[in-house]
Amino acid sequence: MVAKKIEKYEDLKTMNFKVEKIKTLDDFPPIKGINFEKKVSVGKLIDSMATTGFQAANLAKAVHIIKAMQREKAKIFLGFTSNMITSGVREIINYMCKHKMVHSITTTAGGVEEDIVKCFKPFVVGEFDADGRGLLQSGIARTGNIFIPNDRYLYFERFMEKFFVKMNAKQKKEGKVMAITEFTNLLGKEIDNKDSYLYWAHKNGIPVYCPPIIDGAIGDMLYFFKQKHPEFQLDLVDDVRKIVDYSLSVEKTGAIILGAGVPKHHILNSNILRGGLDYTVYVNTAQEYDGCDSGARIDEAITWGKVNPKGMDVKVFCDATIAFPLIMSAVLEK
Amino acid sequence: MVAKKIEKYEDLKTMNFKVEKIKTLDDFPPIKGINFEKKVSVGKLIDSMATTGFQAANLAKAVHIIKAMQREKAKIFLGFTSNMITSGVREIINYMCKHKMVHSITTTAGGVEEDIVKCFKPFVVGEFDADGRGLLQSGIARTGNIFIPNDRYLYFERFMEKFFVKMNAKQKKEGKVMAITEFTNLLGKEIDNKDSYLYWAHKNGIPVYCPPIIDGAIGDMLYFFKQKHPEFQLDLVDDVRKIVDYSLSVEKTGAIILGAGVPKHHILNSNILRGGLDYTVYVNTAQEYDGCDSGARIDEAITWGKVNPKGMDVKVFCDATIAFPLIMSAVLEK
Amino acid sequence: MVAKKIEKYEDLKTMNFKVEKIKTLDDFPPIKGINFEKKVSVGKLIDSMATTGFQAANLAKAVHIIKAMQREKAKIFLGFTSNMITSGVREIINYMCKHKMVHSITTTAGGVEEDIVKCFKPFVVGEFDADGRGLLQSGIARTGNIFIPNDRYLYFERFMEKFFVKMNAKQKKEGKVMAITEFTNLLGKEIDNKDSYLYWAHKNGIPVYCPPIIDGAIGDMLYFFKQKHPEFQLDLVDDVRKIVDYSLSVEKTGAIILGAGVPKHHILNSNILRGGLDYTVYVNTAQEYDGCDSGARIDEAITWGKVNPKGMDVKVFCDATIAFPLIMSAVLEK
Amino acid sequence: MVAKKIEKYEDLKTMNFKVEKIKTLDDFPPIKGINFEKKVSVGKLIDSMATTGFQAANLAKAVHIIKAMQREKAKIFLGFTSNMITSGVREIINYMCKHKMVHSITTTAGGVEEDIVKCFKPFVVGEFDADGRGLLQSGIARTGNIFIPNDRYLYFERFMEKFFVKMNAKQKKEGKVMAITEFTNLLGKEIDNKDSYLYWAHKNGIPVYCPPIIDGAIGDMLYFFKQKHPEFQLDLVDDVRKIVDYSLSVEKTGAIILGAGVPKHHILNSNILRGGLDYTVYVNTAQEYDGCDSGARIDEAITWGKVNPKGMDVKVFCDATIAFPLIMSAVLEK
Repeated sequence: MVAKKIEKYEDLKTMNFKVEKIKTLDDFPPIKGINFEKKVSVGKLIDSMATTGFQAANLAKAVHIIKAMQREKAKIFLGFTSNMITSGVREIINYMCKHKMVHSITTTAGGVEEDIVKCFKPFVVGEFDADGRGLLQSGIARTGNIFIPNDRYLYFERFMEKFFVKMNAKQKKEGKVMAITEFTNLLGKEIDNKDSYLYWAHKNGIPVYCPPIIDGAIGDMLYFFKQKHPEFQLDLVDDVRKIVDYSLSVEKTGAIILGAGVPKHHILNSNILRGGLDYTVYVNTAQEYDGCDSGARIDEAITWGKVNPKGMDVKVFCDATIAFPLIMSAVLEK
Repeated sequence: MVAKKIEKYEDLKTMNFKVEKIKTLDDFPPIKGINFEKKVSVGKLIDSMATTGFQAANLAKAVHIIKAMQREKAKIFLGFTSNMITSGVREIINYMCKHKMVHSITTTAGGVEEDIVKCFKPFVVGEFDADGRGLLQSGIARTGNIFIPNDRYLYFERFMEKFFVKMNAKQKKEGKVMAITEFTNLLGKEIDNKDSYLYWAHKNGIPVYCPPIIDGAIGDMLYFFKQKHPEFQLDLVDDVRKIVDYSLSVEKTGAIILGAGVPKHHILNSNILRGGLDYTVYVNTAQEYDGCDSGARIDEAITWGKVNPKGMDVKVFCDATIAFPLIMSAVLEK
Repeated sequence: MVAKKIEKYEDLKTMNFKVEKIKTLDDFPPIKGINFEKKVSVGKLIDSMATTGFQAANLAKAVHIIKAMQREKAKIFLGFTSNMITSGVREIINYMCKHKMVHSITTTAGGVEEDIVKCFKPFVVGEFDADGRGLLQSGIARTGNIFIPNDRYLYFERFMEKFFVKMNAKQKKEGKVMAITEFTNLLGKEIDNKDSYLYWAHKNGIPVYCPPIIDGAIGDMLYFFKQKHPEFQLDLVDDVRKIVDYSLSVEKTGAIILGAGVPKHHILNSNILRGGLDYTVYVNTAQEYDGCDSGARIDEAITWGKVNPKGMDVKVFCDATIAFPLIMSAVLEK
Repeated sequence: MVAKKIEKYEDLKTMNFKVEKIKTLDDFPPIKGINFEKKVSVGKLIDSMATTGFQAANLAKAVHIIKAMQREKAKIFLGFTSNMITSGVREIINYMCKHKMVHSITTTAGGVEEDIVKCFKPFVVGEFDADGRGLLQSGIARTGNIFIPNDRYLYFERFMEKFFVKMNAKQKKEGKVMAITEFTNLLGKEIDNKDSYLYWAHKNGIPVYCPPIIDGAIGDMLYFFKQKHPEFQLDLVDDVRKIVDYSLSVEKTGAIILGAGVPKHHILNSNILRGGLDYTVYVNTAQEYDGCDSGARIDEAITWGKVNPKGMDVKVFCDATIAFPLIMSAVLEK
C-alpha cells in the first residue's frame, strides 16, 4: 500500500473553504457547530453544518455542489425511488419540475403510479409497527410509516383503463410500439393536475424514464388489459438512444439521486459514454459491504467511468425525507 | 395499542420445534449454541443455529422454509441483484438451474450480462478500498472487492454485436417486437456454455425476467446498434402476462430473493393476483427506516397482498455471499 | 398471531394531530411535503416534516416530545457517544448545559476528554477516505471525516498530569476513593473555559456520568501516573446510588440519547426502578437485527421496564449531526 | 488526490493466494463459488468463500488471520458485547476459555451477568416482532428474538446478594477497593459451573475486563446493597495497569472483536502503547458514516496507533451469530 501523506488541504476532496488561505494543517477549517445564541435561519443552519463534521458536512457539501450545478448551467438528472413519491418529498420534486430545475428524471414504477394515485386522494400518516395482518383486514396497505387505504387504487384503475384504451388506439394508429417516456409524458398530460410532478414534467418537456414501468399496479392492470388487447406493447430500447443522446449533447451534467436501485444505476450508466457525470450527489442509506450497486460509493462509480474523476461529488448517508427538504431549502434560499 | 400476551409458542411465527410438546414458556426451545466438543458438519452447524438466536435463527428458518417449498412442490421464484452474478454465488445459481431447483428467475441487467462476460474470462479477487482513480488508470472496474479488468467487456461486445444482428433478423422475420424473456432465453442458447446459468435456464425452460435489461452494458451497445438499426425494440408488456399467468396456474409458490430492488419487487408483485406467496425467503441487508421497498419487511408485503398471511416466511439480514452458500449446503445435505 | 385492526387514529402511537377531529381513516392527517412557494423558516420546515413521512415524521415527533418534556418539567437525561463531542454537536450540548436544559449527562471516555482537548486547539475538517497509513505518517488521527492533529494530545497530557496530582492529593486527604462524577465535575471546574460543556455542567450542578472513563487517553495517562502513585483509584459504585436516587426522586423523566452503546444503556437502566422513562428520544443509526442493545428498538426497552409503556417515545434513524441541530433549532424557536 | 495504480497483487491488502505466482492482473485469483457437485464440508465451504467475494471473502480472511494468530503464538484479546452471551455464541466463548484459546477478555455488564443468569435457567427462542406491551404483561424481557422470562433474574438476585456480602467482607479484610477483574474472577469461581465461560476464565487465569460492570442488573442490585453497605466500592483504575502491562509484555497481540462499543474500543486502546495490534479481526454490522467508533473501519484505528499498519487485519460485516460459528468451525477443523 502506498501511503499518501496529507500535506495540503487541496489533497482532500472536501468542500472548498477559501483554500488559498490554507497553508498548514493548522489553517484547516476548525470543527465548530451552530451557535444558538444568535438567531438561526435555514441558511445559517446549513452553513454551520459544513464545519460540524460527519454527515452534516456532507449535507452542506451537497448544497454546495447543487449550487455549482446551477451556476455552471449543468443539465440535471434527477433520480428517485418510488418511496419519494409516497412521501412528502413529492411536493419538492413537483416544485423542481414546475420551475424547470431538472432536465431528466428516472424513477421506478411506483414513482410514476403513486403520483397519479395521490391526485385522487392523499396517503395518510401511519406507523412502521402497525401489525400487517390487522392492516390487511382493515384494507390498508403500508409503505414505511405511511398508510394507503385501498380505495385509492380503485380510482387509479378507472383512470388507467381509459388511458390504456387511448394509448392502444394511438399505438395502432401510428403503427409503432411506444417508448416509456412517451407513455409517462402522456400520463402527465392526461392527469392534468398541478399537484402532479408528471404534469409539470409534461408541461416543461422533462422526460420521465422508468425502465421497469410494468413492475407495479400498472403491470397488474396491463395483465387484464392484455387479455382483450394482446397487441399492446411498450418498448424499452428507444429511451436508451434518447437519454444517451442527451447526455452526449450537453456541456455539463449533474445528478441528484435520492435512494438507489435502478434510478441510481440508470442515470450513472447513461453518463458513461460522455466520460462521466461532472457533478454527483447521492442521498441514500445503502451500504457497500455486500457489493450491491445501491450501496456502492462514488469511488466505485469512478472506476466504471460513470463519474468524472475530476468532478465534484458527495454521498449523504441520510433518509432523504430529512436531508432533501433541508438541502433544497438552502439551495433555494436567496 | 392492543397488547398481545404471549401464552403459547404457537402465538409466535418462529420455526416449529415440535410444538405439541410445548405447554408453558419453560418448554420453549432453549437458546444453545454449537458444541465444538463433537464433530461438526454443515448440517449440525445449521441445526445449532436454530437455537443460537438473532440472524443465525433466521438462517436456520430459511433452510426450514426452502425444504418445505421442495417438499410441498411449490414453484420457486428466484430473484437476485447483479452482484450475485459478479460474485461466486453465480456457481450456486448455475447449480440450481442445472438441477431444475427453480422455476422462474428475475434479475437486473448486470445479472444477465455478467453471466455472459464471465464465460470469456473470470473476474478476480480485489479489495473494497482500492483507490478509484488508480483503478481507472489501470483499466480495472470494481464491484465491491471484486476487480473486473476492462478487456472482459471487449469480448462481450464482440459477442453481443453478432447476437443483436441475429435478434434483429428474427424480429424482422416474425414481424413482432420480442419480449425480454425471449431475449434472455436466446442469449442462454447462444452462449452455449455450462458455466452459464442462462445456458441452463435455456436448457431447462426457466424464464429469466429482467425488466430493466437495457440498464447496463447491453444498453450502451444497443445505443450504437440502434444507430444502424433504428427499428430494433424490446417489449416490456408480454412478460407481465407470462409471469402472472404462471403464478395463477400453480398450486403453491415460493420465493427466494437475494438482494432487493427490482428483483424483489417484481417477484412479489407477480404474486398479488394469486393471493400472495406461500413461502418467502428474503436474504438482504437493507433497512426499512427510510421507507424504501428494498428494506421493507415481510409484514409490509402482507399488507399489499404480496405475501400470504398464512404462509411461511423469513428475512435473513446477511450478505448473501455468506448466507446463501450456507443455506444451500444445508438444503442439499442428505 | 392476533391481528390488530386499525380503526381509530388513537390506536397508533404517532404524533397527536388534534385527534378529536379524526373519526375515520379519511380524517387521518394527509401526507404532504413542504411548500417552497412560501417563505421557509426552520419551524415551518419541521412542521412540514410531520406530514412528510418516514424519518422526517419521526424527527418532527422528537421535537414534539422534547417540547412535552419541557412543558411537563421532566428531568432530562442526556446521553451521547464521544463522536458528538468530536463533532460540532458539542456546541449544542454546551448550550444546553449553559442554559440548564438538561439535568444529567452520560457519555463515554472520549465524550469527556475531547471536550478538554478542544479547549486547547480545535479539531479540523477532513475526510472519511483519507488513507490511514498516510495520516499516521502525517501525525493526524482521524474520527470519521474529522482530523485531529496529534499535538492536541500533548496539551491535554500536560493539563491532565497536573490534574491527576491534585485529584490524588484530594483523595489522600479525604481518605476515600473518588466517584467518577466527582472526577468529571472537578475537570469542568479546572478547565474553566466557556467553550467546554464540562465547565457549564460543573457551574450548573449537572452530573456527568462516564462508567468507562478509563477507556481512552485518560486511561493511557493513568497507566503512567499509577507507576508513581499506585494508590490512585476511581470508584464505579457510588454513582449508581446517585443516578438511581435521582431518577426515583423526580416526578417525570425524559431521555435524549444521541448514539447508543453505554450512554444509551446506562440512562435506560437507571430508570428501571422508577418504572421507566416517561419521555424517550433516540437518535441513532444502529439496527436491531444482530440483537445488540445499541440497535434495540424502544419496544424492546419496554419489555425490560426501561421505558414506560404509557409514555411518549420515538427513535429517529439519522446521523445526529444532521438531526440534532435541526431538532434543537425547532425546540428553541419562539 | 494521488491515484494509486494497481500493478501487483502485493499492492492489495487481500489474503495471500501464493503471491509468488502472480505476475500480472490475469494471474489474480479468479472469483469462483462453491461446487455443490462435490461433497461439501465446513472446510471446503470456507475455502470457496475466499474466492466468492464480498463478505464471504472477508470471512475466509478472518479464518486465515486467526490461524496466523495461533501459528505465531499471538496473545489473543477477545471482545464481545452482551448479546453474544444472550445468544448461543456463549457456547463458543465457553469452549475457547476452556481450551485456553484466548488470553484476555473484555465485555460489557450484560456479558458478565447473563453468563451467570443462564447457569440457573436457559433463555428461550422468541421473535423480534413480539409486541413489547404484551411481553411486559407476560413477564418476559426480550433481546432481539430471544425471550428471557423474568424468573431468571430472581435466581440471579439471590446468588448475587450472597456474593456481594462475601466481596464486601473480603474488601474490608484486605482494606483495599477491589478491581473489576478480581470481581469477575471470583464470580467465575463462585458460580462453579462448566456451562459458564466465567468459570473457565477463572480456572485458566484469563482476566475478564468489564469497565461498565455496574451498567445492568448488577448495578441495580448494588443500589440496594449500598444502602446497607455504603462502603462497598469497585475500582476502575487498577485494571488499566494490568491490561497495558500485559499488552506491553508479550511479543505479538491479536484481537477478535464481536460487536463493537466499549469492548472494541477497550481492546484497541490497550494496544496503543505497544504500537498497535499485530492481528485484528472485527465482526460487526456497524457503519462508519455517523463517525461513531463502533462503525470505524480498521483504517481509522491505524491513524490512532491502535492497529499496527504492518499487521494483518479484516472487518467482517455480518451478524456474529452467523459468522462466528462458521469462522470457528473452520479454525478448529483438523
